[in-house]
Amino acid sequence: MQDDSAVGRQEAAGLMDRLDLLAGCTDGNGELTRLYLSSAHRAAIDTVAGWMRHAGLVTRIDGAATLIGRLDGTEAGARTLLIGSHLDTVRDAGRYDGSFGILAGLATLERLQARGIRLPFAVELLAFGDEEGVRFPVTLTGSRACAGTLDIEARLASQDADGATLRDALSRFGCDPATLAHAAFDRADIIAYLEPHIEQGPVLERDGLALGIVTAINAASRFVVTVQGEAGHAGTVPMDGRRDALATAAEMIVATRGAGMAWPDVTATVGRIQAWPGAANVIAGRVEFSLDLRAPTDALRDKACAALFHEWDAITAEHGVTHRVEPGFSASAAACDELWQARLERAAVACGVEPGRLPSGAGHDAMAMAALCPIAMLFVRCRGGISHNPAESIAAPDAELAVDVLVRLLEDLAADGVR
Amino acid sequence: MQDDSAVGRQEAAGLMDRLDLLAGCTDGNGELTRLYLSSAHRAAIDTVAGWMRHAGLVTRIDGAATLIGRLDGTEAGARTLLIGSHLDTVRDAGRYDGSFGILAGLATLERLQARGIRLPFAVELLAFGDEEGVRFPVTLTGSRACAGTLDIEARLASQDADGATLRDALSRFGCDPATLAHAAFDRADIIAYLEPHIEQGPVLERDGLALGIVTAINAASRFVVTVQGEAGHAGTVPMDGRRDALATAAEMIVATRGAGMAWPDVTATVGRIQAWPGAANVIAGRVEFSLDLRAPTDALRDKACAALFHEWDAITAEHGVTHRVEPGFSASAAACDELWQARLERAAVACGVEPGRLPSGAGHDAMAMAALCPIAMLFVRCRGGISHNPAESIAAPDAELAVDVLVRLLEDLAADGVR
Repeated sequence: MQDDSAVGRQEAAGLMDRLDLLAGCTDGNGELTRLYLSSAHRAAIDTVAGWMRHAGLVTRIDGAATLIGRLDGTEAGARTLLIGSHLDTVRDAGRYDGSFGILAGLATLERLQARGIRLPFAVELLAFGDEEGVRFPVTLTGSRACAGTLDIEARLASQDADGATLRDALSRFGCDPATLAHAAFDRADIIAYLEPHIEQGPVLERDGLALGIVTAINAASRFVVTVQGEAGHAGTVPMDGRRDALATAAEMIVATRGAGMAWPDVTATVGRIQAWPGAANVIAGRVEFSLDLRAPTDALRDKACAALFHEWDAITAEHGVTHRVEPGFSASAAACDELWQARLERAAVACGVEPGRLPSGAGHDAMAMAALCPIAMLFVRCRGGISHNPAESIAAPDAELAVDVLVRLLEDLAADGVR
Repeated sequence: MQDDSAVGRQEAAGLMDRLDLLAGCTDGNGELTRLYLSSAHRAAIDTVAGWMRHAGLVTRIDGAATLIGRLDGTEAGARTLLIGSHLDTVRDAGRYDGSFGILAGLATLERLQARGIRLPFAVELLAFGDEEGVRFPVTLTGSRACAGTLDIEARLASQDADGATLRDALSRFGCDPATLAHAAFDRADIIAYLEPHIEQGPVLERDGLALGIVTAINAASRFVVTVQGEAGHAGTVPMDGRRDALATAAEMIVATRGAGMAWPDVTATVGRIQAWPGAANVIAGRVEFSLDLRAPTDALRDKACAALFHEWDAITAEHGVTHRVEPGFSASAAACDELWQARLERAAVACGVEPGRLPSGAGHDAMAMAALCPIAMLFVRCRGGISHNPAESIAAPDAELAVDVLVRLLEDLAADGVR
């Protein structure tokens, strides 16, 4: 046991070192920015592909620029377990969001090999390129292509800020857009998709837990809300004669927080607001604000929205103003497979870890992969819940624990006869 | 009585016609914009001075470009009653704000003359040029000069958006800045300052009253409030772990309305708000908003502010965010003289008018003149409370009533032995 533990620490150190090295693949100047199909993306693929091949994986790049490293299993005809996450980052990013999942998967396979363990089923490590959706006005291109849910022609026509189409960007990157349709996995061949990821939130740290098993990737809906009142002179219109759009919007925002607090695992956020005419001495005649509401199931999201909108109706009616709610982006919840949650839990407990259970408020490639196969996600605690920020940080022992649990999970799967 | 009434209607029609004519003196293209010391200001002075002289007034222009028309009284050594308002406008203005007071004063003197009535005391009609403070970052230059409260050197150095100093602009207008110090009236010579004005608010219309007697020009204070919370991912930070600057600011804004409602004649307005980073999917880390709080007395304003700030302290403490309140513009209340309020009331009642009593939430030249002598203001109802807008409107019969009341007031003053 002492030997195993020593090996574990060594591998985890390797994992953290690699995460530092990979952060060097950047389009930014002194900051980490790695956009889809950029030269930094190319450098990151080359770097990770080199590590994959060194570990004995056979690498390929599909039509959406997803790097795939394959380790065959010992049994002919056995299916394939997918482990993956994304290589792209937001602008001025942290070094763990996305990269951690890919390199934790690689470390897991290396640990098994170091112990001389060969799995009966194949494992493919997926390094997607477009999870953050920063460069193009679309997202999850790689994982949707693998899941076979890409509207290919529409997607290829989308343009970045410089007017380059995704089609041209892929071609310039050396990918053949004509092969995109062949990127889809055969669902009969896939066991599941497993995504290790940093939590990007504060829950595990708050609860004193290193790891968390994701129950679902939350359904999310965004809305643009416009409140129409009547502008007026801040000094001459008495309080009881006002149709103040901003004071009313403020009451709606307070109700929004209340709705988020009232429903379990729901978040309700107003992050953007604008008032017109926007002068200190003029009562606001119009206000526009955003609503972002997320919940572990579509039903709960819709219920929370309906209750909040009902409350808003009463608020605006009371103050003699009108409002309009326009739906924007919307994504269905992706439930994590319960059997796989139980398997992760068993593996964690076997490693002496008590894992948390939590929904993911952020989107992930697993959302897209849920259309293909059972999905499972393992979260690693991150410091202060900070993500999408250079201050993003995870502890090396937590990363080591995650690899411990993944190694154990894969051993358990083999022992359980999963093929 | 029928004759008087017929004359009254005729004069009032003349007043409304003159207001329409005066609106033709504009710097704007198809809109009314008359900035201090502009060519439109010059044209307005020439127009009004012509009308004044036609009515037998002796005109002069002081060092601050205030047009003054004097009608001597019959008694040697009698003091002077001042009646006035301002000729300048905001951009894209209505035609009654300011101009009404000057021309209603002139109509009053004309009506007295038409009846062959000569007053024992002198009357000077004042047409100030800088009440709106649009061109220079200062305001009330004309009325402060008359009241003798101008910090002359500092004022002359202030610059408009084109970098022209007030000193140069006055010189180019034909005024000698060196004479500014001589613009101050001798307080021993002044009976009072009387300013007729449109209400610029909805109170008289709401209450079904044509005229209102102003009790005070409200004290006003502005503040810039900064709320500092913590930005975070709208999906991953649970509701109970947030330090949401915008949700907290919303609660502060709701409390602001509550404070305005709780105190009599107080207005409390948040008209401007900004949130950072200002994205739909990011919890706001910082919010800045304005507060404009007005009350009929400085003491009430300060009491209402203190109570609101106390409430804000509790709100931000509860949500784990901090806030800072920075004072900006502040003006003391100017109480209207109670004896003059009673005189206006008596004159109104004698004309068969029930006048309202209300504070003025907007600032006026009377604020500055309060440093010189008793001030009184007579408000005329305006449609929908709309002002600073081309849709600004008053009814001709209301304007006529105001002149009726002013005529009666001046007759009463003479009868009461005011000299």
